[in-house]
Amino acid sequence: MSEQATTTTLTEDECWEVLDAGSVGRLATAVGGDPEIFPVSFGTAARTLYFLTKPGTKLVEMVVNNRVAFETDAWDDATATSVVVKGVAEIIESDADVADAESSGVVPFVQDGKNVWVRITPTHVTGRRLTR
Amino acid sequence: MSEQATTTTLTEDECWEVLDAGSVGRLATAVGGDPEIFPVSFGTAARTLYFLTKPGTKLVEMVVNNRVAFETDAWDDATATSVVVKGVAEIIESDADVADAESSGVVPFVQDGKNVWVRITPTHVTGRRLTR
Repeated sequence: MSEQATTTTLTEDECWEVLDAGSVGRLATAVGGDPEIFPVSFGTAARTLYFLTKPGTKLVEMVVNNRVAFETDAWDDATATSVVVKGVAEIIESDADVADAESSGVVPFVQDGKNVWVRITPTHVTGRRLTR
Repeated sequence: MSEQATTTTLTEDECWEVLDAGSVGRLATAVGGDPEIFPVSFGTAARTLYFLTKPGTKLVEMVVNNRVAFETDAWDDATATSVVVKGVAEIIESDADVADAESSGVVPFVQDGKNVWVRITPTHVTGRRLTR
């Protein structure tokens, strides 16, 4: 099947289709020179990413107010699609910001009422699709 | 369902069960102070991770001879399991090393014969499972 393998670069609109349809991604940070990676349940609204996490966690410490790289992917037998978002993460607290976040439809894996919202404002979005 | 939600820390053996059963993960690096994240199809052999990639790619540049953080996860309706491996990545070329890598059973998404093997030697393996 190697002859038919192709790599397609996604347009920004196509990247957002993948992001809008996604629910699980991973967040990478580089605080202190070492990489860290965390799985997150995420949602999107107005081309912004949102997720919920617990206050005081390592994830919050490492991610907030730092540049992050976020990735989500979708695989089936014929295609592998991956989208990477570079951006800046911050905790949001104002009612207006939280209303925007809630409109993202994110469903945390565990809902226990002790979560804080994190917003990732994208600076760069890229994606590609491998087809075999 | 919040009352029943639990978080379990996996033992190292349990982490390796997840890694040995996994096939898709993501690799994070922190070269130059900025995070990067890449999806990879991986395999394991003797508690070492292996994947194939193309020579000369950004992934190779960013990852090789650097500390990396690798994550794989498994989700179903009731549980979300995530394992993170910290380690050092390097390209391997010797026949003995490549034989070890081939024993990992990794199947790259696209096989086109132009790949190089990357080995991740773990320094730290952690995992947790959320149950709801």
